[in-house]
Amino acid sequence: MKKGEATRARIIDETGRQAAIKGFGAVSLGDVAEAVGLSKSGLFKHFDSKEDMELATLDAGFDRFIAFVWDPADDLPPGRPRLESVFERWLDWTEVENAAGGCLIMAASTELDDQPGPMRDLLQVRVRKWRQRLAGEMKALREPPMSDAEAQGVVFQMKSFILGHSELRRLLDDTGARAAARAAFDSLMDRTQQI
Amino acid sequence: MKKGEATRARIIDETGRQAAIKGFGAVSLGDVAEAVGLSKSGLFKHFDSKEDMELATLDAGFDRFIAFVWDPADDLPPGRPRLESVFERWLDWTEVENAAGGCLIMAASTELDDQPGPMRDLLQVRVRKWRQRLAGEMKALREPPMSDAEAQGVVFQMKSFILGHSELRRLLDDTGARAAARAAFDSLMDRTQQI
Repeated sequence: MKKGEATRARIIDETGRQAAIKGFGAVSLGDVAEAVGLSKSGLFKHFDSKEDMELATLDAGFDRFIAFVWDPADDLPPGRPRLESVFERWLDWTEVENAAGGCLIMAASTELDDQPGPMRDLLQVRVRKWRQRLAGEMKALREPPMSDAEAQGVVFQMKSFILGHSELRRLLDDTGARAAARAAFDSLMDRTQQI
Repeated sequence: MKKGEATRARIIDETGRQAAIKGFGAVSLGDVAEAVGLSKSGLFKHFDSKEDMELATLDAGFDRFIAFVWDPADDLPPGRPRLESVFERWLDWTEVENAAGGCLIMAASTELDDQPGPMRDLLQVRVRKWRQRLAGEMKALREPPMSDAEAQGVVFQMKSFILGHSELRRLLDDTGARAAARAAFDSLMDRTQQI
Protein backbone atom coordinates (compact mmCIF):
# COMPACT_ATOMS: atom_id res chain seq x y z
CA MET A 1 0.00 0.00 0.00
CA LYS A 2 1.33 3.41 -0.88
CA LYS A 3 1.80 5.94 1.89
CA GLY A 4 -1.12 8.06 0.70
CA GLU A 5 -3.46 5.08 0.72
CA ALA A 6 -2.32 4.06 4.20
CA THR A 7 -3.00 7.55 5.53
CA ARG A 8 -6.40 7.60 3.87
CA ALA A 9 -7.20 4.25 5.50
CA ARG A 10 -6.15 5.56 8.92
CA ILE A 11 -8.37 8.62 8.51
CA ILE A 12 -11.29 6.38 7.59
CA ASP A 13 -10.66 4.12 10.61
CA GLU A 14 -10.52 7.04 12.98
CA THR A 15 -13.64 8.68 11.52
CA GLY A 16 -15.49 5.36 11.82
CA ARG A 17 -14.42 4.92 15.41
CA GLN A 18 -15.63 8.39 16.38
CA ALA A 19 -18.88 8.08 14.40
CA ALA A 20 -19.75 4.76 16.04
CA ILE A 21 -19.42 6.35 19.48
CA LYS A 22 -21.00 9.76 19.00
CA GLY A 23 -22.59 9.78 15.56
CA PHE A 24 -21.40 11.24 12.24
CA GLY A 25 -22.97 14.58 13.10
CA ALA A 26 -20.62 15.00 16.07
CA VAL A 27 -17.38 13.86 14.39
CA SER A 28 -14.86 16.69 14.65
CA LEU A 29 -12.34 17.26 11.86
CA GLY A 30 -9.90 18.58 14.46
CA ASP A 31 -10.11 15.41 16.54
CA VAL A 32 -9.70 13.15 13.52
CA ALA A 33 -6.73 15.18 12.26
CA GLU A 34 -5.05 15.14 15.66
CA ALA A 35 -5.56 11.39 16.13
CA VAL A 36 -3.90 10.59 12.82
CA GLY A 37 -1.17 13.22 13.19
CA LEU A 38 -2.25 15.60 10.46
CA SER A 39 -3.47 19.17 10.23
CA LYS A 40 -7.08 19.78 9.23
CA SER A 41 -5.93 20.91 5.80
CA GLY A 42 -3.85 17.71 5.63
CA LEU A 43 -7.11 15.74 5.72
CA PHE A 44 -8.26 17.44 2.57
CA LYS A 45 -5.34 16.10 0.56
CA HIS A 46 -7.18 12.78 0.90
CA PHE A 47 -10.80 13.87 0.69
CA ASP A 48 -12.62 16.59 -1.19
CA SER A 49 -14.86 17.48 1.73
CA LYS A 50 -16.04 16.35 5.15
CA GLU A 51 -18.98 14.66 3.45
CA ASP A 52 -16.65 12.84 1.06
CA MET A 53 -14.71 11.59 4.10
CA GLU A 54 -17.90 10.46 5.80
CA LEU A 55 -19.19 8.68 2.71
CA ALA A 56 -15.87 6.82 2.35
CA THR A 57 -16.08 5.85 6.04
CA LEU A 58 -19.61 4.51 5.78
CA ASP A 59 -18.70 2.60 2.63
CA ALA A 60 -15.65 1.09 4.33
CA GLY A 61 -17.84 0.14 7.31
CA PHE A 62 -20.09 -1.85 5.00
CA ASP A 63 -17.09 -3.50 3.34
CA ARG A 64 -15.85 -4.61 6.77
CA PHE A 65 -19.29 -5.94 7.63
CA ILE A 66 -19.50 -7.97 4.40
CA ALA A 67 -15.95 -9.29 4.86
CA PHE A 68 -16.78 -10.39 8.41
CA VAL A 69 -20.27 -11.77 7.89
CA TRP A 70 -20.35 -13.00 4.30
CA ASP A 71 -16.84 -13.91 3.20
CA PRO A 72 -16.38 -16.96 5.50
CA ALA A 73 -19.58 -18.39 3.97
CA ASP A 74 -18.43 -17.92 0.41
CA ASP A 75 -16.90 -21.40 0.10
CA LEU A 76 -19.86 -23.20 1.67
CA PRO A 77 -22.60 -24.84 -0.38
CA PRO A 78 -25.34 -22.35 -1.35
CA GLY A 79 -28.60 -22.20 0.53
CA ARG A 80 -28.92 -23.30 4.13
CA PRO A 81 -25.25 -24.02 5.02
CA ARG A 82 -24.28 -20.58 3.76
CA LEU A 83 -27.22 -18.81 5.41
CA GLU A 84 -26.56 -20.52 8.73
CA SER A 85 -22.97 -19.38 8.67
CA VAL A 86 -24.03 -15.83 7.76
CA PHE A 87 -26.56 -15.73 10.60
CA GLU A 88 -24.00 -16.92 13.18
CA ARG A 89 -21.38 -14.46 11.98
CA TRP A 90 -23.96 -11.68 11.99
CA LEU A 91 -24.76 -12.42 15.63
CA ASP A 92 -21.00 -12.43 16.33
CA TRP A 93 -20.67 -9.10 14.55
CA THR A 94 -23.31 -7.40 16.71
CA GLU A 95 -21.53 -8.72 19.82
CA VAL A 96 -17.99 -7.82 18.75
CA GLU A 97 -18.91 -4.44 17.37
CA ASN A 98 -21.10 -3.47 20.28
CA ALA A 99 -18.19 -4.08 22.61
CA ALA A 100 -16.30 -1.19 21.02
CA GLY A 101 -18.54 1.85 20.67
CA GLY A 102 -21.23 -0.03 18.77
CA CYS A 103 -21.70 -1.05 15.15
CA LEU A 104 -21.12 1.87 12.79
CA ILE A 105 -23.92 0.78 10.48
CA MET A 106 -26.49 0.45 13.27
CA ALA A 107 -25.40 3.80 14.71
CA ALA A 108 -25.64 5.43 11.29
CA SER A 109 -29.05 3.83 10.66
CA THR A 110 -30.50 5.35 13.80
CA GLU A 111 -28.82 8.70 13.23
CA LEU A 112 -29.53 9.17 9.54
CA ASP A 113 -32.89 7.51 8.99
CA ASP A 114 -34.67 10.86 9.17
CA GLN A 115 -31.93 12.98 7.55
CA PRO A 116 -32.23 12.95 3.75
CA GLY A 117 -29.00 13.42 1.82
CA PRO A 118 -26.06 11.54 0.26
CA MET A 119 -25.21 9.66 3.48
CA ARG A 120 -28.72 8.34 3.87
CA ASP A 121 -28.80 7.48 0.15
CA LEU A 122 -25.59 5.47 0.47
CA LEU A 123 -26.94 3.71 3.55
CA GLN A 124 -30.14 2.77 1.73
CA VAL A 125 -28.28 1.54 -1.35
CA ARG A 126 -25.96 -0.68 0.66
CA VAL A 127 -28.68 -2.05 2.97
CA ARG A 128 -30.90 -2.84 -0.03
CA LYS A 129 -28.00 -4.53 -1.81
CA TRP A 130 -27.28 -6.61 1.29
CA ARG A 131 -30.91 -7.67 1.55
CA GLN A 132 -30.89 -8.53 -2.15
CA ARG A 133 -27.84 -10.73 -1.69
CA LEU A 134 -29.55 -12.55 1.16
CA ALA A 135 -32.75 -12.91 -0.85
CA GLY A 136 -30.76 -14.46 -3.70
CA GLU A 137 -29.34 -16.97 -1.27
CA MET A 138 -32.80 -17.74 0.12
CA LYS A 139 -33.93 -18.83 -3.32
CA ALA A 140 -31.45 -21.73 -3.21
CA LEU A 141 -33.44 -23.13 -0.27
CA ARG A 142 -36.13 -24.50 -2.56
CA GLU A 143 -36.57 -26.12 -5.92
CA PRO A 144 -38.27 -24.57 -7.86
CA PRO A 145 -36.90 -21.39 -6.25
CA MET A 146 -39.28 -19.11 -4.38
CA SER A 147 -40.31 -15.74 -5.77
CA ASP A 148 -38.40 -12.58 -4.95
CA ALA A 149 -41.29 -11.35 -2.80
CA GLU A 150 -41.27 -14.57 -0.76
CA ALA A 151 -37.50 -14.42 -0.38
CA GLN A 152 -37.73 -10.80 0.83
CA GLY A 153 -40.24 -11.94 3.43
CA VAL A 154 -37.77 -14.50 4.74
CA VAL A 155 -35.00 -11.88 4.78
CA PHE A 156 -37.31 -9.58 6.75
CA GLN A 157 -37.65 -12.26 9.43
CA MET A 158 -33.94 -13.07 9.47
CA LYS A 159 -33.05 -9.40 10.00
CA SER A 160 -35.79 -9.03 12.62
CA PHE A 161 -34.22 -11.82 14.68
CA ILE A 162 -30.85 -10.06 14.53
CA LEU A 163 -32.48 -6.90 15.89
CA GLY A 164 -34.42 -8.84 18.53
CA HIS A 165 -31.20 -10.51 19.65
CA SER A 166 -29.42 -7.17 20.06
CA GLU A 167 -32.20 -5.75 22.16
CA LEU A 168 -32.49 -8.78 24.41
CA ARG A 169 -28.74 -8.94 24.95
CA ARG A 170 -27.96 -5.25 25.26
CA LEU A 171 -30.98 -3.96 27.14
CA LEU A 172 -32.01 -6.97 29.20
CA ASP A 173 -28.60 -8.66 29.59
CA ASP A 174 -30.46 -11.82 28.67
CA THR A 175 -28.01 -14.70 28.37
CA GLY A 176 -30.62 -16.68 26.44
CA ALA A 177 -30.69 -14.10 23.63
CA ARG A 178 -28.51 -16.07 21.27
CA ALA A 179 -30.43 -19.31 21.82
CA ALA A 180 -33.75 -17.52 21.21
CA ALA A 181 -32.47 -15.99 17.97
CA ARG A 182 -30.99 -19.27 16.78
CA ALA A 183 -34.17 -21.24 17.51
CA ALA A 184 -36.27 -18.67 15.65
CA PHE A 185 -33.90 -18.76 12.68
CA ASP A 186 -33.71 -22.57 12.56
CA SER A 187 -37.48 -22.78 12.53
CA LEU A 188 -37.59 -20.17 9.75
CA MET A 189 -35.14 -22.19 7.65
CA ASP A 190 -37.07 -25.44 8.28
CA ARG A 191 -40.33 -23.91 7.17
CA THR A 192 -38.83 -22.22 4.16
CA GLN A 193 -37.36 -25.48 2.94
CA GLN A 194 -40.49 -27.50 3.61
CA ILE A 195 -43.19 -25.50 1.90
CA MET B 1 -56.96 16.80 39.16
CA LYS B 2 -55.50 19.20 41.73
CA LYS B 3 -53.31 22.04 40.50
CA GLY B 4 -50.14 20.41 41.84
CA GLU B 5 -50.89 17.18 40.03
CA ALA B 6 -51.62 19.01 36.80
CA THR B 7 -48.30 20.85 37.00
CA ARG B 8 -46.48 17.63 37.74
CA ALA B 9 -48.11 16.04 34.70
CA ARG B 10 -47.06 18.98 32.50
CA ILE B 11 -43.46 18.67 33.71
CA ILE B 12 -43.49 14.96 32.90
CA ASP B 13 -44.92 15.59 29.43
CA GLU B 14 -42.31 18.21 28.65
CA THR B 15 -39.44 16.08 29.97
CA GLY B 16 -40.66 13.15 27.89
CA ARG B 17 -40.92 15.30 24.78
CA GLN B 18 -37.36 16.56 25.18
CA ALA B 19 -35.96 13.13 26.09
CA ALA B 20 -37.52 11.51 23.02
CA ILE B 21 -35.80 14.06 20.79
CA LYS B 22 -32.36 14.40 22.35
CA GLY B 23 -32.08 11.72 25.04
CA PHE B 24 -32.49 11.92 28.80
CA GLY B 25 -28.80 12.80 29.17
CA ALA B 26 -29.33 16.06 27.27
CA VAL B 27 -32.59 17.17 28.91
CA SER B 28 -32.05 20.59 30.45
CA LEU B 29 -33.80 21.55 33.68
CA GLY B 30 -33.79 25.16 32.51
CA ASP B 31 -35.58 24.30 29.24
CA VAL B 32 -38.17 22.15 31.01
CA ALA B 33 -38.79 24.84 33.62
CA GLU B 34 -39.17 27.55 30.98
CA ALA B 35 -41.52 25.47 28.83
CA VAL B 36 -43.90 24.87 31.75
CA GLY B 37 -43.57 28.41 33.13
CA LEU B 38 -41.73 27.63 36.35
CA SER B 39 -38.34 28.41 37.83
CA LYS B 40 -35.83 25.61 38.21
CA SER B 41 -36.43 25.54 41.94
CA GLY B 42 -40.15 25.40 41.16
CA LEU B 43 -39.57 22.02 39.52
CA PHE B 44 -38.25 20.66 42.76
CA LYS B 45 -41.52 21.27 44.54
CA HIS B 46 -42.77 18.38 42.44
CA PHE B 47 -39.71 16.13 42.32
CA ASP B 48 -36.93 15.33 44.76
CA SER B 49 -34.23 15.40 42.12
CA LYS B 50 -33.60 15.42 38.37
CA GLU B 51 -33.37 11.64 38.50
CA ASP B 52 -36.70 11.42 40.30
CA MET B 53 -38.20 13.56 37.52
CA GLU B 54 -36.66 11.35 34.84
CA LEU B 55 -37.84 8.13 36.50
CA ALA B 56 -41.38 9.50 36.70
CA THR B 57 -41.19 10.45 33.02
CA LEU B 58 -40.02 7.03 31.91
CA ASP B 59 -42.69 5.38 34.04
CA ALA B 60 -45.36 7.62 32.54
CA GLY B 61 -44.05 6.78 29.06
CA PHE B 62 -44.61 3.10 29.72
CA ASP B 63 -48.07 3.78 31.11
CA ARG B 64 -48.94 5.63 27.90
CA PHE B 65 -47.58 2.75 25.84
CA ILE B 66 -49.65 0.17 27.73
CA ALA B 67 -52.77 2.34 27.51
CA PHE B 68 -52.31 2.72 23.75
CA VAL B 69 -51.25 -0.82 22.86
CA TRP B 70 -52.90 -3.07 25.43
CA ASP B 71 -56.00 -1.38 26.77
CA PRO B 72 -58.06 -1.58 23.53
CA ALA B 73 -57.46 -5.37 23.57
CA ASP B 74 -58.58 -5.81 27.13
CA ASP B 75 -62.21 -6.56 26.21
CA LEU B 76 -61.34 -9.00 23.42
CA PRO B 77 -61.28 -12.77 23.92
CA PRO B 78 -57.90 -13.97 25.26
CA GLY B 79 -55.30 -15.48 22.96
CA ARG B 80 -55.16 -14.72 19.27
CA PRO B 81 -57.82 -11.97 18.97
CA ARG B 82 -56.16 -10.05 21.79
CA LEU B 83 -52.63 -10.63 20.47
CA GLU B 84 -53.60 -9.56 16.96
CA SER B 85 -55.04 -6.33 18.29
CA VAL B 86 -51.92 -5.73 20.40
CA PHE B 87 -49.64 -6.33 17.42
CA GLU B 88 -51.58 -3.89 15.21
CA ARG B 89 -51.66 -1.21 17.89
CA TRP B 90 -47.96 -1.72 18.52
CA LEU B 91 -47.24 -1.10 14.83
CA ASP B 92 -49.47 1.98 15.05
CA TRP B 93 -47.58 3.14 18.10
CA THR B 94 -44.18 3.00 16.39
CA GLU B 95 -45.62 4.99 13.50
CA VAL B 96 -47.41 7.61 15.60
CA GLU B 97 -44.60 8.03 18.07
CA ASN B 98 -41.86 8.14 15.46
CA ALA B 99 -43.68 11.01 13.80
CA ALA B 100 -43.04 13.22 16.83
CA GLY B 101 -39.43 12.92 17.95
CA GLY B 102 -39.55 9.14 18.25
CA CYS B 103 -40.79 6.71 20.85
CA LEU B 104 -39.52 7.61 24.30
CA ILE B 105 -39.05 3.97 25.26
CA MET B 106 -37.06 3.10 22.12
CA ALA B 107 -34.94 6.23 22.56
CA ALA B 108 -34.32 5.40 26.22
CA SER B 109 -33.48 1.77 25.36
CA THR B 110 -30.74 2.81 22.94
CA GLU B 111 -29.44 5.52 25.26
CA LEU B 112 -29.46 3.63 28.54
CA ASP B 113 -28.67 0.04 27.59
CA ASP B 114 -25.02 0.49 28.54
CA GLN B 115 -25.53 2.91 31.44
CA PRO B 116 -26.18 1.03 34.70
CA GLY B 117 -28.31 2.84 37.28
CA PRO B 118 -31.89 3.39 38.43
CA MET B 119 -33.14 4.46 34.99
CA ARG B 120 -31.81 1.33 33.32
CA ASP B 121 -33.20 -0.76 36.17
CA LEU B 122 -36.66 0.75 35.70
CA LEU B 123 -36.45 0.18 31.95
CA GLN B 124 -35.53 -3.47 32.45
CA VAL B 125 -38.27 -4.04 35.01
CA ARG B 126 -40.94 -2.56 32.77
CA VAL B 127 -39.75 -4.28 29.59
CA ARG B 128 -39.58 -7.63 31.39
CA LYS B 129 -43.06 -7.09 32.82
CA TRP B 130 -44.40 -6.27 29.37
CA ARG B 131 -42.84 -9.42 27.90
CA GLN B 132 -44.29 -11.43 30.76
CA ARG B 133 -47.75 -10.06 30.06
CA LEU B 134 -47.43 -11.02 26.40
CA ALA B 135 -46.09 -14.47 27.32
CA GLY B 136 -49.11 -15.01 29.58
CA GLU B 137 -51.36 -14.18 26.65
CA MET B 138 -49.43 -16.54 24.36
CA LYS B 139 -50.28 -19.42 26.64
CA ALA B 140 -53.98 -19.00 25.83
CA LEU B 141 -53.13 -19.90 22.21
CA ARG B 142 -52.95 -23.60 23.06
CA GLU B 143 -54.60 -26.21 25.21
CA PRO B 144 -52.78 -27.52 27.22
CA PRO B 145 -50.95 -24.18 27.50
CA MET B 146 -47.34 -24.00 26.31
CA SER B 147 -44.48 -23.66 28.76
CA ASP B 148 -43.16 -20.29 29.84
CA ALA B 149 -39.95 -20.87 27.86
CA GLU B 150 -41.93 -21.61 24.70
CA ALA B 151 -44.11 -18.56 25.24
CA GLN B 152 -41.01 -16.37 25.70
CA GLY B 153 -39.70 -17.68 22.38
CA VAL B 154 -42.90 -16.57 20.66
CA VAL B 155 -42.68 -13.17 22.37
CA PHE B 156 -39.09 -12.86 21.14
CA GLN B 157 -40.28 -13.30 17.55
CA MET B 158 -43.23 -10.93 17.97
CA LYS B 159 -40.95 -8.20 19.29
CA SER B 160 -38.38 -8.90 16.57
CA PHE B 161 -41.01 -8.25 13.89
CA ILE B 162 -41.84 -4.92 15.52
CA LEU B 163 -38.15 -3.94 15.36
CA GLY B 164 -37.81 -5.22 11.79
CA HIS B 165 -40.85 -3.18 10.78
CA SER B 166 -39.40 0.01 12.26
CA GLU B 167 -36.12 -0.43 10.43
CA LEU B 168 -37.74 -1.18 7.10
CA ARG B 169 -40.09 1.75 7.38
CA ARG B 170 -37.77 4.33 8.87
CA LEU B 171 -34.50 3.58 7.13
CA LEU B 172 -35.66 2.17 3.81
CA ASP B 173 -38.99 4.02 3.47
CA ASP B 174 -40.36 0.63 2.50
CA THR B 175 -44.11 0.88 2.02
CA GLY B 176 -44.36 -2.91 2.30
CA ALA B 177 -42.99 -2.89 5.86
CA ARG B 178 -46.35 -3.29 7.51
CA ALA B 179 -47.43 -6.11 5.22
CA ALA B 180 -44.14 -7.94 5.82
CA ALA B 181 -44.50 -7.63 9.59
CA ARG B 182 -48.12 -8.69 9.52
CA ALA B 183 -47.42 -11.75 7.34
CA ALA B 184 -44.59 -12.83 9.63
CA PHE B 185 -46.80 -12.40 12.70
CA ASP B 186 -49.79 -14.23 11.19
CA SER B 187 -47.57 -17.16 10.32
CA LEU B 188 -46.15 -17.15 13.85
CA MET B 189 -49.66 -17.26 15.34
CA ASP B 190 -50.73 -20.06 12.96
CA ARG B 191 -47.76 -22.20 13.89
CA THR B 192 -48.09 -21.54 17.58
CA GLN B 193 -51.72 -22.61 17.53
CA GLN B 194 -51.11 -25.71 15.41
CA ILE B 195 -48.29 -27.44 17.23
